Amino acid sequence: MQTEYFQANRERFLEGLKAFLRIPSVSTLPEHKADVRQAAEFVREELAAMGMHGARLIEAQGRHPLVYAQWLEAPGKPTLLVYGHYDVQPVEPVEEWKSPPFEPTIRGEDIFARGACDDKGQTYLILKALEGYLKTAGRLPVNVRVLIEGEEEVGGEHIEEYVEAHAEELRADAALICDTEMFAPGLPTICVGLRGIVYGELEVRGARTDLHSGQYGGAAPNPLQAMAHILAQLKDREGRIRIPGFLDDVRPPSQLEQQAWARLPFDEAEYLEKEIGAPALVGPAEIQVLERVWAQPTVEVHGIRGGFIGEGAKTVIPARALAKLSMRLVPDQSADRAAEQLRSAVAAACPPGVVAEYRVISAAPPSLIDPSGTFIQAAAMALEKSFGRETVFIRSGGSIPIVGLFERHLGIGSVLMGFGLPDDNLHAPNEKFHLPNFYAGIEAVAGYLEVLGS
Amino acid sequence: MQTEYFQANRERFLEGLKAFLRIPSVSTLPEHKADVRQAAEFVREELAAMGMHGARLIEAQGRHPLVYAQWLEAPGKPTLLVYGHYDVQPVEPVEEWKSPPFEPTIRGEDIFARGACDDKGQTYLILKALEGYLKTAGRLPVNVRVLIEGEEEVGGEHIEEYVEAHAEELRADAALICDTEMFAPGLPTICVGLRGIVYGELEVRGARTDLHSGQYGGAAPNPLQAMAHILAQLKDREGRIRIPGFLDDVRPPSQLEQQAWARLPFDEAEYLEKEIGAPALVGPAEIQVLERVWAQPTVEVHGIRGGFIGEGAKTVIPARALAKLSMRLVPDQSADRAAEQLRSAVAAACPPGVVAEYRVISAAPPSLIDPSGTFIQAAAMALEKSFGRETVFIRSGGSIPIVGLFERHLGIGSVLMGFGLPDDNLHAPNEKFHLPNFYAGIEAVAGYLEVLGS
Repeated sequence: MQTEYFQANRERFLEGLKAFLRIPSVSTLPEHKADVRQAAEFVREELAAMGMHGARLIEAQGRHPLVYAQWLEAPGKPTLLVYGHYDVQPVEPVEEWKSPPFEPTIRGEDIFARGACDDKGQTYLILKALEGYLKTAGRLPVNVRVLIEGEEEVGGEHIEEYVEAHAEELRADAALICDTEMFAPGLPTICVGLRGIVYGELEVRGARTDLHSGQYGGAAPNPLQAMAHILAQLKDREGRIRIPGFLDDVRPPSQLEQQAWARLPFDEAEYLEKEIGAPALVGPAEIQVLERVWAQPTVEVHGIRGGFIGEGAKTVIPARALAKLSMRLVPDQSADRAAEQLRSAVAAACPPGVVAEYRVISAAPPSLIDPSGTFIQAAAMALEKSFGRETVFIRSGGSIPIVGLFERHLGIGSVLMGFGLPDDNLHAPNEKFHLPNFYAGIEAVAGYLEVLGS
Repeated sequence: MQTEYFQANRERFLEGLKAFLRIPSVSTLPEHKADVRQAAEFVREELAAMGMHGARLIEAQGRHPLVYAQWLEAPGKPTLLVYGHYDVQPVEPVEEWKSPPFEPTIRGEDIFARGACDDKGQTYLILKALEGYLKTAGRLPVNVRVLIEGEEEVGGEHIEEYVEAHAEELRADAALICDTEMFAPGLPTICVGLRGIVYGELEVRGARTDLHSGQYGGAAPNPLQAMAHILAQLKDREGRIRIPGFLDDVRPPSQLEQQAWARLPFDEAEYLEKEIGAPALVGPAEIQVLERVWAQPTVEVHGIRGGFIGEGAKTVIPARALAKLSMRLVPDQSADRAAEQLRSAVAAACPPGVVAEYRVISAAPPSLIDPSGTFIQAAAMALEKSFGRETVFIRSGGSIPIVGLFERHLGIGSVLMGFGLPDDNLHAPNEKFHLPNFYAGIEAVAGYLEVLGS
């Protein structure tokens, strides 16, 4: 019954997705505050229109709203907490987009737009799965709570505070999150591990004010140069992390997991050429690439502010430099301990003439999920039915802080059923979503509800 | 006669200077192109109004104009080529200015504005000295050519081409340039050495496109991290340059010069506290500070572009990073050789996974001027008369490419008679000019013409 509904409404679903993608809900930029709110309203209206109960915005001072709705009319059946996010990453460098980031454009079987995959596309497919049930059967096979946030890309503090304060109201048996990817096209995939993250700013201060490099060059400290010395101490030329103690808490993946990863269709040369497009990969060569990105921590610099970066020439020695610097964490690392270790390493590496300080902006612990649990196994079955292939279990190098949050405050595990593809350009120009995955995802989520309810 | 004129016109001179400073003639920014032209017109009108002959703009496609005028009615007397520049540096970071950079503001005895000292204030005082003679005596004591450019802060290619092509028309016996500083307040100073410069961009390229640091962190090369490794190889933690061969051509200052420098009123602790305001100085401790900034080369990074530097968090591994990187050169280094040595060092330091390339934007050789020449000695006399103290001979760490240009194409030396002060904040927020030096400078230049003509 749902399948027919899904078939009949393909065009409408696509138009709805486009409307969602047109809203530039960049949560990190204050100038997009109204757009972020508009995206929240969009989600709330969808939930209300399909027949979910009590669809509403949850507000908090200075925060982007949460969207909540529920349907709890299936006594004796499990309760699923559905999570997604309607906010997106900034679009810079905008000149590298082939079509404008907020004008969804279809090329081939893909839809290109900021948020197409992460996470508007994957949030929207869950909504359409729920709609299909409600519009055809008039009910859902299980109890469902929907909680969609607008701060996933900026640390998610609102949802963190809300979940902690309203654990009882959010009671559920498991969470369903579609914010990850399939290992390969057509290969159904559940993610059972996520890296944690510490994101912050490393500030280096030198002279009181910007100085002329002619007048003072050779005697005045240069914070950008000092920043280079500090960053070069945190990782060596080959990409090995050199922060003392940092790798001590890293738990290697189990032999079983390593064997399963070795069976995945992965070709390092193809990965380098098609996904990265650089002269070579970095990192410890004795550790397999998948283990490096899934089960090893990182230290990455995302941008360096300070001095002059316009066109032409300015001979300034800046008074300060600021680097956006993050660490991805794996079990059994802790965010607090990692930040402490980084601070010690920065202090030890800081050259004479400047002071350096690392400030944490946001942090989330790593997560590992037991793949033998009921909810995961049911998801694997639903996916196998939709895609006709055995489901694989992988990890992700990314961080979905909400997983740790649900574990800590609600005591539930998460099912990470992802429909993105490895070349979807998340957080980068030309982000896309593979439309066949959008439609298959709707069917798979509906099928999952079916399996859980039976 | 001039002295009375100068006294009577102090207010008018100050208003004229303010009008000049109000024009935001930032030569490196395309959006200020019209303002740069307005500043050129301002200078041309001043020259025409005071009675200089043939005042005109010299145009070239896509270039800021030169301003030229002459007065050649003193047969048998020497000809002085007066040089200055009417363009200024950008104002960033604008939020650190106490008063708007293009609203000249007097606090105490100083006038604050971008270009107040470098070089509008010092160009304008020469104009006023010429005006004083022409308006009172109706003539000048020597022949004078005036050539004022608008691209000093962006490499000065227009004037370079013009001087090379019109050497015969610019024939002169010496050049007068007021674009340097006094060693200390009240201490008349002539600069006899300048560092050269190579200014360029170091680009590091990694992946084809920006990547998500969760998905790819640990395997994908990070051009910002690679940039840090390269920069850390060019200079050590203490600020010693590590480019192979780079220091081989450095000629140490003569013993005589070193002894003269040792007699200058210089206190390292005060310099650190008042001028720099950092925890410590950098550079080879066994070399005196004045020698470090005057007679040692530098490698400085002025800004690093790439990735995300907005507010908040974006977890991007940028595809490329670009550093503005300059080298100051001293005798007997050559710009071409230094650029080659830098390129080799960059290639050797470049870590796996990225490619790095250095592109030169502009270059100028270092200059050393013989202090025993007639024109320098006459200048020393004129300064001693105006300031009542013995003139000192110093070098400058800055680069005034025009000095080498005049030497090469016109075969003449330059007299660098500077009226700036060490704390004038050149190229930095709150640039200022000490007004007593403005007025004394007018008298000193007039006195110099007098000495040369007698």
